[in-house]
Amino acid sequence: MIDFPSKERLAHIVYESDDRASKYFDLVLLVLILMSVSIVVLDSVEEIHTNYGSLLYGLEWFFTLVFTIEYGFRIWLSNNKRGYIFGFYGLVDLLAILPTYLSLILFQTQYLTVIRALRFLRILRILKLPKYVREATLLTTALKHSQAKIKVFVGSVLTIVLVMGSVMYIVEGPASGFTSIPRSMYWAIVTLTTVGYGDIAPVTDLGQFIAALIMLMGYAIIAVPTGIVSSELTAARLDETKRAKSPEAAAEHCPACGAQSHSEDALFCRKCGAKLDAAQA
Amino acid sequence: MIDFPSKERLAHIVYESDDRASKYFDLVLLVLILMSVSIVVLDSVEEIHTNYGSLLYGLEWFFTLVFTIEYGFRIWLSNNKRGYIFGFYGLVDLLAILPTYLSLILFQTQYLTVIRALRFLRILRILKLPKYVREATLLTTALKHSQAKIKVFVGSVLTIVLVMGSVMYIVEGPASGFTSIPRSMYWAIVTLTTVGYGDIAPVTDLGQFIAALIMLMGYAIIAVPTGIVSSELTAARLDETKRAKSPEAAAEHCPACGAQSHSEDALFCRKCGAKLDAAQA
Amino acid sequence: MIDFPSKERLAHIVYESDDRASKYFDLVLLVLILMSVSIVVLDSVEEIHTNYGSLLYGLEWFFTLVFTIEYGFRIWLSNNKRGYIFGFYGLVDLLAILPTYLSLILFQTQYLTVIRALRFLRILRILKLPKYVREATLLTTALKHSQAKIKVFVGSVLTIVLVMGSVMYIVEGPASGFTSIPRSMYWAIVTLTTVGYGDIAPVTDLGQFIAALIMLMGYAIIAVPTGIVSSELTAARLDETKRAKSPEAAAEHCPACGAQSHSEDALFCRKCGAKLDAAQA
Amino acid sequence: MIDFPSKERLAHIVYESDDRASKYFDLVLLVLILMSVSIVVLDSVEEIHTNYGSLLYGLEWFFTLVFTIEYGFRIWLSNNKRGYIFGFYGLVDLLAILPTYLSLILFQTQYLTVIRALRFLRILRILKLPKYVREATLLTTALKHSQAKIKVFVGSVLTIVLVMGSVMYIVEGPASGFTSIPRSMYWAIVTLTTVGYGDIAPVTDLGQFIAALIMLMGYAIIAVPTGIVSSELTAARLDETKRAKSPEAAAEHCPACGAQSHSEDALFCRKCGAKLDAAQA
Repeated sequence: MIDFPSKERLAHIVYESDDRASKYFDLVLLVLILMSVSIVVLDSVEEIHTNYGSLLYGLEWFFTLVFTIEYGFRIWLSNNKRGYIFGFYGLVDLLAILPTYLSLILFQTQYLTVIRALRFLRILRILKLPKYVREATLLTTALKHSQAKIKVFVGSVLTIVLVMGSVMYIVEGPASGFTSIPRSMYWAIVTLTTVGYGDIAPVTDLGQFIAALIMLMGYAIIAVPTGIVSSELTAARLDETKRAKSPEAAAEHCPACGAQSHSEDALFCRKCGAKLDAAQA
Repeated sequence: MIDFPSKERLAHIVYESDDRASKYFDLVLLVLILMSVSIVVLDSVEEIHTNYGSLLYGLEWFFTLVFTIEYGFRIWLSNNKRGYIFGFYGLVDLLAILPTYLSLILFQTQYLTVIRALRFLRILRILKLPKYVREATLLTTALKHSQAKIKVFVGSVLTIVLVMGSVMYIVEGPASGFTSIPRSMYWAIVTLTTVGYGDIAPVTDLGQFIAALIMLMGYAIIAVPTGIVSSELTAARLDETKRAKSPEAAAEHCPACGAQSHSEDALFCRKCGAKLDAAQA
Repeated sequence: MIDFPSKERLAHIVYESDDRASKYFDLVLLVLILMSVSIVVLDSVEEIHTNYGSLLYGLEWFFTLVFTIEYGFRIWLSNNKRGYIFGFYGLVDLLAILPTYLSLILFQTQYLTVIRALRFLRILRILKLPKYVREATLLTTALKHSQAKIKVFVGSVLTIVLVMGSVMYIVEGPASGFTSIPRSMYWAIVTLTTVGYGDIAPVTDLGQFIAALIMLMGYAIIAVPTGIVSSELTAARLDETKRAKSPEAAAEHCPACGAQSHSEDALFCRKCGAKLDAAQA
Repeated sequence: MIDFPSKERLAHIVYESDDRASKYFDLVLLVLILMSVSIVVLDSVEEIHTNYGSLLYGLEWFFTLVFTIEYGFRIWLSNNKRGYIFGFYGLVDLLAILPTYLSLILFQTQYLTVIRALRFLRILRILKLPKYVREATLLTTALKHSQAKIKVFVGSVLTIVLVMGSVMYIVEGPASGFTSIPRSMYWAIVTLTTVGYGDIAPVTDLGQFIAALIMLMGYAIIAVPTGIVSSELTAARLDETKRAKSPEAAAEHCPACGAQSHSEDALFCRKCGAKLDAAQA
């Protein structure tokens, strides 16, 4: 506070998180985001809005100002201003502060519903959270690896939903709530994913028979994404274990020909046959 | 467009997908299928049918004509015409265009319901989709491998459903909606698969106790298909990894006796004891 | 039919299934069981009972007589008559034919409900089915291996259900349908297993918060049995693969000291150091 | 009973479970806990309370006295009295006996609801159960290993619930039961976990579309915790199998340099190149 830090230092604090000051900055921001989101959530409860509405409104403005200053700082400190402003986090930052200001300008009653909806854009602040959680990358990597298979899986599910939804639309018809194919497809998703609200349910014998088939399908199909992720994670784990066991093996070059990537327990170079261990000793 | 391609070239474009023209053809067909299916889905919505019914009817005819031309082309270009026409894709192609023509001929009101149902056969066009997705084969192979185990699993589920459905029919009776064993079995499937509509639910103490047992069973049983697919995919993955690590090992013959399939790290032939690595060097 | 087979031959046909005649016998029995069970199921449907009641009654007697003859044959042919009669399959066989005969004796109206219930014992015939399915043993073995872990899992689930059921009984009370702890526990099972009928659902804010916790628990807990079975099946599969690769290794004895169970790629005996491969060659 | 055991012997019986007397003590306590919990559960059923209320009240006092004696004994026998009294099990023991005594003191009607609630604290006795089940540690270890990943998973789920709950609050509004963001979040959890009560369900087209998205997400996301636990257990199992195969390998030191943790099939020390097997022979 006394020694005002240089612009480079500030940029480091705001954009990195590898020393004390930058970690504190991240933590404070994390807490502010969680608090501001809580306020939006609480304000949506009728009773709380009636009793503490003005207090929450004040806090709302406080957080908006804080995040506005943060937004300004981030633009000022960024080397690639255009990249930040039009990037994902820049847009989230902007959308999170904009609605409060808009509510001042668009004060006419005809825009009230729009403003009401826009105010909840502040919830988007939560999307800045993953940045502060290291472990998240672990899972996203595993998911990315199985992406191709997951796409095929989602495609199959949607095909089943389309075909089964159409069949049920013909079999049950509007009388049981299957008023259109899109609604039938909604029901098929509710059933296939085993959610089963019961707001729409088959009443004819044939309809219940087909529904039972869809349920059994859903029950069996869920094994597929689980199997994909399981095998991906198991493979990743076994890889880790192996590498942990013989860290030097990974870097083992043949002393004679320089060939790499020998199997872990190779005694002789798989290219030229020279003894590997002897050379290392 | 100017140089009209030869019949061989056309057959290649239509039936293969390994160069530019054939890939474009596949993509265009894919988009056309998705669009024609969307039209059937949209037309089933009351409001859209009322307002845009004639537009959709026109588009319907457009797609039918396009697919008719495609159907004709495929027959003309096929070397094995009989094989195509009576094969799975040939029948799907035919069933997808037939209903529109039938609606012209069977114009009498008494056939209206039948025609209505037939019109949705067009949805079947979606079944041509997997042809355009390479990755689909991956999953189907894994599923085929675990087929035997999945059959046993489905058999066990159906046995539980039959026995539990009968028990609940006696315990709860028609008063709570368990009007027959088939309906009780429908309820047992709804419960075992954890869908749980709530349209039929036990009300007696004993019935709720048995229902709780079925739920816990369903909760535990779902582990089985998941485990089957997981282990199948994990085994497949590990196999791949191993093969990738030592591609030449697979082809390793003993220089002395010619024996194959030595373990990856074998130093001596497992049949005659000759040194393997030395011979390779 | 012409050459009446010896008693030994008959016993072989009835109890084994390794040649043509015995396999035919199994298949015929399988079909008879499925048909007789179908009749019980169909007879429970009001309309079918009204229209085809007497036909089904006739078929009922036909199957009862056939299974009575089979029961007599099995006793006559068995070497261990006491073992068969009081064993699982013997009791199932008896319980499946008894009710039809009992319905003749206990003709008084006061026993009608009891007889009605007993008639469904015929469904038990389905339990003879697994005998005819070889693959079933595969899964039961895997399940038996993970039995200990599954018991702990079911124990944890029941503890959660007991504690959460009691909490919800206090929080929600009889007004929302939580009329007693047993009923609250029923609701907790419905929720934890993600069945979710909706016949009982929390209405207070605190109740809904606790319910959300239970749901998230159930969603996370289901990973445990799945993980158990997955790891068990994966381990079994990998074992199989390994054994398939080096079948002779399993029987490898040290030529010097006779020690067994060397690791697959051992070159020297792990007990006395003698060369293993050299001795085999 | 005749030879009164020493204090050391008693402490051993109460706190350990490695000989006959201490195992009997554990078993008796286990049965007493299960019985006392059953009484609380049964007493909550209206009819049973009316008919057998006084019997259950008597049994209640009997168990309270037994557990009070046990509590006293445990304090008296403990070497670390403070540690026991303020530890988890000490507090559970106290909370389990306290309510019965409190019901004597706080006899005024204004405290009745509080006492009613407190009485169910006795259910907590069930939490002493895991102490008596050896296998439980197995699962908890596996869960602890995947803790970090499970936290990230729960975090992602809560983020989805927050964002989707807010969106549905705006889209559906109070008319369909989405009266506030917290309630919308409750609905999102009910849907994402595939419980699906149906007490709150979307009615607008857009709402049902978003709900379908959440369901598909929930259906796919459940694969993640399952995959985590599966891979953790598979890795643990494979580790066990390996260790079981070569128990002496784990302790294998290089005879020349003393280096440890050689790969299972190492022939030469990975540090100094000395022959490992030769030295052992």
